[in-house]
Amino acid sequence: MNITLPSGKNIPVQPDMSIQGALKKAGVHLTSSCAGKGTCGKCKIIIKSGPVDTHSSTKLTREEIKKGHVLACQSFPRGDLSIEIPKESELVVEGKIAVGKAKDLLDLLHSTGAGIDPITERKILNLPPPSITDNISDLERLKRELFSKGLGCLRVPFRFLINLANILRKKNWEITLTILHTEDCYEITNIFPGNKKTTRCGIAVDIGTTTIVVYLIDLNDGSILDIASTYNSQIKFGDDVITRIVYAEEHTALKTLNKAVISDVNSLLSLLRKNHNISLDSIDNLVIAGNTTMTHIFLGLDPSNIREDPYIPTANSFPISYAGELGVKVNPNTPLYTFPCVASYVGGDVVSGVLASRMHKNKELCLFMDIGTNGEIVLGNSEWLVTVACSAGPCFEGSGINHGMRATEGAIEDVRINRDTLEPEIEVIGEDVQPIGICGSGMIDAIAEMFVTGIIDSKGKLQKGRSKRIRKGDSGPEFVIHYGENRDIVLSEPDIENLIRAKAAIYAGFSILLKEMGYTFNDVHKIYIAGGFGKFLDVEKAIILGMLPDLPEGKFKYLGNTSIAGTYLCTLSQKMREEAEDIAEKMTYIELSVSRSFMDEYVSGLFIPHTNIDAFPNVKSLLKK
Amino acid sequence: MNITLPSGKNIPVQPDMSIQGALKKAGVHLTSSCAGKGTCGKCKIIIKSGPVDTHSSTKLTREEIKKGHVLACQSFPRGDLSIEIPKESELVVEGKIAVGKAKDLLDLLHSTGAGIDPITERKILNLPPPSITDNISDLERLKRELFSKGLGCLRVPFRFLINLANILRKKNWEITLTILHTEDCYEITNIFPGNKKTTRCGIAVDIGTTTIVVYLIDLNDGSILDIASTYNSQIKFGDDVITRIVYAEEHTALKTLNKAVISDVNSLLSLLRKNHNISLDSIDNLVIAGNTTMTHIFLGLDPSNIREDPYIPTANSFPISYAGELGVKVNPNTPLYTFPCVASYVGGDVVSGVLASRMHKNKELCLFMDIGTNGEIVLGNSEWLVTVACSAGPCFEGSGINHGMRATEGAIEDVRINRDTLEPEIEVIGEDVQPIGICGSGMIDAIAEMFVTGIIDSKGKLQKGRSKRIRKGDSGPEFVIHYGENRDIVLSEPDIENLIRAKAAIYAGFSILLKEMGYTFNDVHKIYIAGGFGKFLDVEKAIILGMLPDLPEGKFKYLGNTSIAGTYLCTLSQKMREEAEDIAEKMTYIELSVSRSFMDEYVSGLFIPHTNIDAFPNVKSLLKK
Repeated sequence: MNITLPSGKNIPVQPDMSIQGALKKAGVHLTSSCAGKGTCGKCKIIIKSGPVDTHSSTKLTREEIKKGHVLACQSFPRGDLSIEIPKESELVVEGKIAVGKAKDLLDLLHSTGAGIDPITERKILNLPPPSITDNISDLERLKRELFSKGLGCLRVPFRFLINLANILRKKNWEITLTILHTEDCYEITNIFPGNKKTTRCGIAVDIGTTTIVVYLIDLNDGSILDIASTYNSQIKFGDDVITRIVYAEEHTALKTLNKAVISDVNSLLSLLRKNHNISLDSIDNLVIAGNTTMTHIFLGLDPSNIREDPYIPTANSFPISYAGELGVKVNPNTPLYTFPCVASYVGGDVVSGVLASRMHKNKELCLFMDIGTNGEIVLGNSEWLVTVACSAGPCFEGSGINHGMRATEGAIEDVRINRDTLEPEIEVIGEDVQPIGICGSGMIDAIAEMFVTGIIDSKGKLQKGRSKRIRKGDSGPEFVIHYGENRDIVLSEPDIENLIRAKAAIYAGFSILLKEMGYTFNDVHKIYIAGGFGKFLDVEKAIILGMLPDLPEGKFKYLGNTSIAGTYLCTLSQKMREEAEDIAEKMTYIELSVSRSFMDEYVSGLFIPHTNIDAFPNVKSLLKK
Repeated sequence: MNITLPSGKNIPVQPDMSIQGALKKAGVHLTSSCAGKGTCGKCKIIIKSGPVDTHSSTKLTREEIKKGHVLACQSFPRGDLSIEIPKESELVVEGKIAVGKAKDLLDLLHSTGAGIDPITERKILNLPPPSITDNISDLERLKRELFSKGLGCLRVPFRFLINLANILRKKNWEITLTILHTEDCYEITNIFPGNKKTTRCGIAVDIGTTTIVVYLIDLNDGSILDIASTYNSQIKFGDDVITRIVYAEEHTALKTLNKAVISDVNSLLSLLRKNHNISLDSIDNLVIAGNTTMTHIFLGLDPSNIREDPYIPTANSFPISYAGELGVKVNPNTPLYTFPCVASYVGGDVVSGVLASRMHKNKELCLFMDIGTNGEIVLGNSEWLVTVACSAGPCFEGSGINHGMRATEGAIEDVRINRDTLEPEIEVIGEDVQPIGICGSGMIDAIAEMFVTGIIDSKGKLQKGRSKRIRKGDSGPEFVIHYGENRDIVLSEPDIENLIRAKAAIYAGFSILLKEMGYTFNDVHKIYIAGGFGKFLDVEKAIILGMLPDLPEGKFKYLGNTSIAGTYLCTLSQKMREEAEDIAEKMTYIELSVSRSFMDEYVSGLFIPHTNIDAFPNVKSLLKK
């Protein structure tokens, strides 16, 4: 049996294999956040012709069923099929390569006063060949030379002896060493014959729950040679960290999740290496940052205790590991530095973000927020740092929202509702593109606008009769944001409730941090917004929604992907790695799950903008108008 | 086709497989030092019946050929065979287990002032379980506990994180750690759930060129639980280190040689573990000593530069390695300490021997000699140590001598020649055993006696007519030491020349050391004789031969296998390991191969006892009688 795609591509199917399974095997990935259980409704495809057995699903509208939509994970071919994959169902691996930011980040590095001082250095040695009067052993000869160059404390792991005699003699006693700077000593991590100083790269990796970004960095001058990114293939097993931990436990699938992310990183590395003609041996070191769960899974560590009270990770600070023991495809002796985490729900990505924001060097009080798949907030200054993780959930990335999607091509990212006609005007990411869903910033805009125009009340309930766009949908009342040819894009009441819960959690996070430290929002000098989500965020709308505090817009600053920025800094500088360790060490984590006052704050936030409207003076005056 | 042994055992043979090959495949090993080239003549067997193709060999006498002897490596069955393996051809794997020496060695350890302080220790920890108010990570919890116990500087290799969460929780936060003491820090080498302190063993290994000895040591009280030994299976590839290095180079067979010795050690370990019901995890560490070549091959390091001017080993001092990377079958994380070597031909076995002799702590001048397969001599006191390696060759172990053999059952170890009848009286190792060859001490006795009785002259030439036992043999004139039923045991003129060359090299070694340091033999307080060879040595005869200096017998002391003794000491004590490193560091190696005065001394020694008879006053007066 075969499945034929519109491109003409034929995909073979084994009996009893779902369409999703067959596509996956052929390298065509569909979006999915329920691991093939048929409950998320994301893997919709269209059957153009051919016999298929399919289970019914509440996730499909009658209209869709009529048009041949089925869930790929719940459908089994019974003969040759011809299908179509709607854009919103396809999980696109970006593989996008774009050079840029090099200058900005290098400037940032220089502004910190740090030099270029990667975790490993290369040393080219020309050893005096042995003679009958200078007949010390090869290892002693090497150590004598290094000692004379000031490397007194030097560890040579046993494995480097195996081929040492050969390597020393291959290019007439000229060798290139890669040396790792550890806390207490130097350690040889690689030995090559001859002079191998020409190319020398570092790899910075940001392991996001959703996206993985890799920078290829020239360790000689700090320039970014290239960037590659892809979705984290673990998405197949769940959208957020909790779902993935549960999946790993229920299917004893830690190894599966681990392999997924390692293989993603390997694909990106291979792409970058090929494009720039860089050999395996030219990569001197890797630096990774991720939230605590992503870090654990990447390293192959069991994340299950992260999920269970009292929420204990295996480690927050990680020893150097080596590419070979992780399965990362570069020279197996290449060392990997892992960003330190703070607690189970505040990870290396946040530490990296704070490092890049420089708030830990600022005397003024700053707030840092990274609302990606998870939500973390840090408050502090050069003296202290406190942090909370808000279980905001991944709804701003589209998860749990009927027509939710990430901020990529086809996403509605801006919604205005005409004050007179109450008709929405939308903006879509991409040029000349039909909308296929709505992303986080689009949802915030939409809800804020719907509230301001009275389409929803402060509890998020749709006001029937206020607009003809309010109708009854499969999951309750819904508001049509866009009438489409194939399908309409709507926000339903459950969608809106989801988003209100998320924004309440975030605002409660801010409040708790300030309260704990005896401050108010007015004491905050800057609010740094990090993460892809922030890119299209309309701060004013987020304030109306009650997600962000009602402060002047000038206080907010969008920083972009600070996790990869901090990782870049640490790939290049020892000073930056020391700062990162300091940040992780001095950051105090407040566990919200047991905080009584967090629950109070959270419940108060389940209104738009807030139960205490006086905390939002500008919104209050806007509403009066 | 089958080969039938007298025991009734049937061994299958493939076409074109030599008898030696077929036997080897079935686990029956024959002695051999030419790797199957047909040149050493050691793998003689007797064809009782059946067709065989065999190449002629000068290594077989007419008598032997008549009796059905063939060289197994040069003979190919052409049908079913019935054969017999003469005792002298069979390579016996001892597998001998004998408890003993425990008290002596423990006393030696105590006499040095050292306590029991192995390279690893076990720590049982009961960690406080985490709670929401004490929610540091697993690794931090472990480090906190160890820090409170004084282990500030602690390295946790990344691999121990992989299963840490699980191990900590398995026995309710009780764990047992194995911790390695390194130069600068502590390092975790193993983690087990629960209390695992009960059994805890160390393994001391002496890798001799000929014999491998393993001690199983209780690390809690220092007692030797058991001893096992076997021939080094590398014997198949050559009797001495040079032959093996050449074999490794010519056949790119380093891995083969390495596997042979590793597999020997594994067999002994497995035997010891089974007999004492000791689990893989109960073995905490290994300590090995061997000469420089044996050490290199055991560790998998290329020994080829040891053989070539300027004779450079890969290393003389070795980083800790781990059982897993060496293929030693205990827990793969078990650390292995390797005795430091001094130079290409003075290895860890000599360092270990000096350590056990305690000469490095003696204010008086001492000489140490270890004449095994190689010959090394050390001169010194508590202030300094100098050493030479004499290329004595392995003839005292039977190699290159027609009827030579090691000092095992069936070897003639004592020869007296009746002053009147000139008939030899012999003593054989073993009870009620027919002689099958002659070992090193037997040869020394025989030559000294033949010299004193005028059967040979001072150049070692047989005096035809002096005895009817002098006859013409296949390799020249020979003296029949024993008339046997199957074969006579003889010493030929080439045998005698071989032995004279060897003894001349040893004596020249002594002389050079003393001369270099400005001493004479009379300044020497003690001469320590180490190695299996010394066990049956008659010092008086060795003096007559001119191998040992003409000093009172009370100055000579036989110490036994000092290499394993020193290895035992280092398995138990940090102080001993430090002393071993000190010995290796302060021992000055004199390269004889380029020494003009060594050649002079050597040539002067090619007479019995010596060109300068005045250096042997007692021999001189004996001869006058």
